[in-house]
Amino acid sequence: MSDTGGKVIKCKAAVCWGAGEPLKIENIEVAPPQAHEVRIHILHTGICHTDEYTRSGKDPEGLFPVILGHEGGGVVESVGQGVTNVAVGDHVIPLYTAECRECKFCKSGKTNLCGKVRATQGKGLMPDNTSRFTCKGQPIHHFMGTSTFSQYTVVADVSVVAVDKKAPLEKVCLLGCGITTAWGSVVKQPGIKDSSVAVFGCGAIGLGVVNTSAMVGASRIIAIDTNPGKEAWARKFGATDFINPLQLPEGTRIQDHLVEITDGGLDYTFDCTGNVHVMRSALEACHKGWGVSTIIGVAAAGQEISTRPFQLVTGRTWRGSAFGGVKGRTEIPGLVEDYLQGKVKIDEYVTHYRKFAEINEGFHDMHGGECIRCVVDMS
Amino acid sequence: MSDTGGKVIKCKAAVCWGAGEPLKIENIEVAPPQAHEVRIHILHTGICHTDEYTRSGKDPEGLFPVILGHEGGGVVESVGQGVTNVAVGDHVIPLYTAECRECKFCKSGKTNLCGKVRATQGKGLMPDNTSRFTCKGQPIHHFMGTSTFSQYTVVADVSVVAVDKKAPLEKVCLLGCGITTAWGSVVKQPGIKDSSVAVFGCGAIGLGVVNTSAMVGASRIIAIDTNPGKEAWARKFGATDFINPLQLPEGTRIQDHLVEITDGGLDYTFDCTGNVHVMRSALEACHKGWGVSTIIGVAAAGQEISTRPFQLVTGRTWRGSAFGGVKGRTEIPGLVEDYLQGKVKIDEYVTHYRKFAEINEGFHDMHGGECIRCVVDMS
Repeated sequence: MSDTGGKVIKCKAAVCWGAGEPLKIENIEVAPPQAHEVRIHILHTGICHTDEYTRSGKDPEGLFPVILGHEGGGVVESVGQGVTNVAVGDHVIPLYTAECRECKFCKSGKTNLCGKVRATQGKGLMPDNTSRFTCKGQPIHHFMGTSTFSQYTVVADVSVVAVDKKAPLEKVCLLGCGITTAWGSVVKQPGIKDSSVAVFGCGAIGLGVVNTSAMVGASRIIAIDTNPGKEAWARKFGATDFINPLQLPEGTRIQDHLVEITDGGLDYTFDCTGNVHVMRSALEACHKGWGVSTIIGVAAAGQEISTRPFQLVTGRTWRGSAFGGVKGRTEIPGLVEDYLQGKVKIDEYVTHYRKFAEINEGFHDMHGGECIRCVVDMS
Repeated sequence: MSDTGGKVIKCKAAVCWGAGEPLKIENIEVAPPQAHEVRIHILHTGICHTDEYTRSGKDPEGLFPVILGHEGGGVVESVGQGVTNVAVGDHVIPLYTAECRECKFCKSGKTNLCGKVRATQGKGLMPDNTSRFTCKGQPIHHFMGTSTFSQYTVVADVSVVAVDKKAPLEKVCLLGCGITTAWGSVVKQPGIKDSSVAVFGCGAIGLGVVNTSAMVGASRIIAIDTNPGKEAWARKFGATDFINPLQLPEGTRIQDHLVEITDGGLDYTFDCTGNVHVMRSALEACHKGWGVSTIIGVAAAGQEISTRPFQLVTGRTWRGSAFGGVKGRTEIPGLVEDYLQGKVKIDEYVTHYRKFAEINEGFHDMHGGECIRCVVDMS
């Protein structure tokens, strides 16, 4: 047990007090972990569009005040009673998709979604229905079960995984969301080897899908983005083609163009934009008879996807995945090893670094087309 | 070669002269089969909703005048040059989903859709872009490559399969569409054994899905229909539960009710209605994490399916199939054997028989809730 174990820790956190407000660095108190909880000293965190989605107020389920952040890396400071999967001093990655290995979902062998802490996580609380964060005497909501925009956070033990200490946390923190999501979305689908792939959107997720598709041996990888600056990025990550839909002849739909240049459509497509119109294009760009389209992007609340049912009846499949279908506790340690052996790219995604005090600038970075990922140093 | 081989045959056919008009029994001429074509003496035919869809004028791709019908059984009268897969005297079933075994689709091993005669079939013509049917000096369109509402029809050799002569054609003609579609939609999906299934719509296709699900060992089979008379039918075919959505408390959506009574949703659902709103319910009734919804019904032109992408991101899959994913030439002979051995029901679907002269009454029968399938005697 560390010196601070069992005691309230005072530290800094970036608190979002209300929808649409910038984050504010505040002094907060972090209560000790309860049974089956883990308190983590967060050293680095990425910033992801999902953080911005909730911060902006567009997320109707957003709760305030809140400590956002879900792409973190840190060191276990102390553990509550009954915690056996991590120990003080372990390097860890918090997991917004828990893995309890006991619930109906975990035991199904068919999904990475875990039911154990889902209900309380959705309410911004720990499993006992309370918060571990206090600021100015007021409880602050947790976010996605992780809240990595705090120097210390508390997570459920089913929501954290220890990784190899040789791996730099300022890099592998990105395995907490984007890169793992992209990786899983590809490797969990058999058949991508020797197949054609189209990737809509070349942010971190899209580039990850491009890169993983190249890694598993896709024969053709068409990257699509309206930002021409993404072509160089996409090719660097393994794309064989790049298309800017804005440069197609007027009236030409991207799906029709793709079907034409690929002799009938793609074997696999991925939406990495969160735009429901792009999701439709991705489905309809699939080859009749066998094309599979995967939705990875998160759409804004209330938006719907549509298509003609004929698209499905003639053999296309529309699916999606959350966190790439990856079981974090089981699979992330291996992904870290793959990174250490040079098989999985992470460093290449990090275009921006920010000090904790500059976290709002990190959000601005993300909106710029030349930012893939910004990593924040929490010290 | 038969006596009529190589000559024009005069016979009767039910011609639909225009959108929305009843069928009219006419004397027509049927030209001899050209190379790689087969002329068939049709003895029996089923009537399917797709025939009615085109007859009614709702199908924007419908062509007139036309000889409808795609669920037929007959005997090969003569064959054109180069035909090797069937011979004069063979009992055969015409196939609206061809199987050439040579095109990109057939060789993919991933789909039953065949590209060989697709383009001309869609234009109501034989592969050489002409018709074999003439009535009152006017060419008449073929339909779905089969046109079984004629005493003699001509089909491409890739669009016909020979079956065991022991099987009564007035029964196995139904393998030309409905029953095979239902059977394939279930058996082509691994995992239905020991799983829960919901079937929306209890027409011939829906009952076939119920029956095949029972045959492969589904643990629970919930049949859904707004016609209370279908409950007895569904239970006879193997349903464990029957729900009439009109009898739910007001404001209760069928998908919410199903999710509630199945502890999270169904493992597999099937839309057998062609109604796009029902298709959405079928998807949303699936279990998070792994539920798979299959669209079998054919929607009216221009209609679209919609849902929130969250439904897919949280692990549901939306797919469809045409002719149940069945490769007709390869698989129907085995299905006929299964029928002869009592493993596959066919007789039980036939509720109505009609003489050829009463074919329009057969269409009326179909609209009544107590008709599952009407078989027409073409003699």
